[in-house]
Amino acid sequence: MATIINGKELSKKIRMQVKEKVQELNKERIKPKLAVIMVGEDKASKIYLKNKSKACNEVGIEYEEFILNENIKMDELLELIRTLNEKKDIHGILLQSPIPKHLDIYKAFQTIDYRKDVDGFHPINIGRLVLNKQTFISCTPYGIIKMLEEYKIQLQGANVVILGRSNIVGKPLAQCLLNKDATVTICHSKTKNIEEITKKADIIISAIGKPKYVTENMVKQGAVVIDVGINRLETGEIVGDVDYEKVQEKASYITPVPGGVGPMTIAMLLNNVVIATKHLEQK
Amino acid sequence: MATIINGKELSKKIRMQVKEKVQELNKERIKPKLAVIMVGEDKASKIYLKNKSKACNEVGIEYEEFILNENIKMDELLELIRTLNEKKDIHGILLQSPIPKHLDIYKAFQTIDYRKDVDGFHPINIGRLVLNKQTFISCTPYGIIKMLEEYKIQLQGANVVILGRSNIVGKPLAQCLLNKDATVTICHSKTKNIEEITKKADIIISAIGKPKYVTENMVKQGAVVIDVGINRLETGEIVGDVDYEKVQEKASYITPVPGGVGPMTIAMLLNNVVIATKHLEQK
Repeated sequence: MATIINGKELSKKIRMQVKEKVQELNKERIKPKLAVIMVGEDKASKIYLKNKSKACNEVGIEYEEFILNENIKMDELLELIRTLNEKKDIHGILLQSPIPKHLDIYKAFQTIDYRKDVDGFHPINIGRLVLNKQTFISCTPYGIIKMLEEYKIQLQGANVVILGRSNIVGKPLAQCLLNKDATVTICHSKTKNIEEITKKADIIISAIGKPKYVTENMVKQGAVVIDVGINRLETGEIVGDVDYEKVQEKASYITPVPGGVGPMTIAMLLNNVVIATKHLEQK
Repeated sequence: MATIINGKELSKKIRMQVKEKVQELNKERIKPKLAVIMVGEDKASKIYLKNKSKACNEVGIEYEEFILNENIKMDELLELIRTLNEKKDIHGILLQSPIPKHLDIYKAFQTIDYRKDVDGFHPINIGRLVLNKQTFISCTPYGIIKMLEEYKIQLQGANVVILGRSNIVGKPLAQCLLNKDATVTICHSKTKNIEEITKKADIIISAIGKPKYVTENMVKQGAVVIDVGINRLETGEIVGDVDYEKVQEKASYITPVPGGVGPMTIAMLLNNVVIATKHLEQK
């Protein structure tokens, strides 16, 4: 039976560390602050924002929300971003996706001051990650790396297979792992013989959003299995991309859903806000 | 026996196309111009510069060289770059590497106006490549993609193994291939069981700089083999990373060295200068 990688526990530990760092900054009269922009009334986004707000509050990071009407024009969105870029009391800016389709999210991300880009979505921060330079790493990949490190899972030379090539998870994660000397394979919807590829993997990381897609016949005995998926079944149950019950019998380490990667993402966001604050305040 | 991918021939074709585009621009009184910076007296770099100068000349791209003393300070290098950034008659800026070790090449690349970054080394251009947005693609990976396309080699769903993870070849190439829907694996010095991985590849691209490293037992029957290596043996002979004689008997397509990837790199540089010119002059 696999060891369960407890993301909930680890995220608590990281949030405690962030809290201490915030308190140190407070002693120097620096108050880390995150600004969050939401456009429209997406239900899931509202829940995410509530969680982020709560998490900030718990560690002492100031939090301000900017809720824009779904009919807003691109110029107005960019104008708000530029205003927040200028504000000295704001250290991190986060644009909650999705945004309505008439808006260009890429342009919006690129307009955020890269020094306040705590989500790591600005192309310059992505480029710096590729070059293995100091940057903001997207919160989910960053959280996954932290988990693997916490459980002392060997990355150097490990054969890692990533399922999914999104800009938010798959692509930055591949860079992070390459920077840690892993051999990285990125699979996606066009990949052939995917089972043959995953069966060779020392570490499988699934981020494709298909419930119970990764079955035990795709997993090598003793592999590490990281599940980024958060899929809601018709029954209302939340499951990952991995057929957890069966795969855990074969894996050496596995992340549960919920309580695995999910809680790490917010913890790393808080961590990124502190990093941004220290840089901007030159501490 | 493998079909030989003739990089020399294809690069000629591309240079002819570039020449035509330059002539069209000339009609509108626009003269594409490349500025090249070299620091110190590296012998190989001098040869590269001579080749670049000649290639520019042949297609009608204006070319200016800035040779700096090897003891130059970082500020002076950055000052020159900033001056070239400002100059309206210069459309492309290339910093020849290597530069002396007391200088920060990354900072230099980052200082080049990304709109004139015809080598595609600026982090913002790397980030845009990751995001599959319009950008300057590094010349060698770009040349490889052009070759594969010219010979109608299926990339979608192809299992591609890249040997080498340099910022100049391996990493941007992986992004290009991912953008073309290939399944991409990046191997490097820390990879274990490399032979097992390459044997599964539909396409092997080697960019590690080890003479005759890729032997026939590493190659699947019918695989496409692209050789980026340019290695000088003690005898003076130039060979690639691939044991060409034996591998060609197994491969379906193969690039020779010389006459394969090499000539494509300069052709794509010229192409990037034209792209930069059109963008800057808004044509």
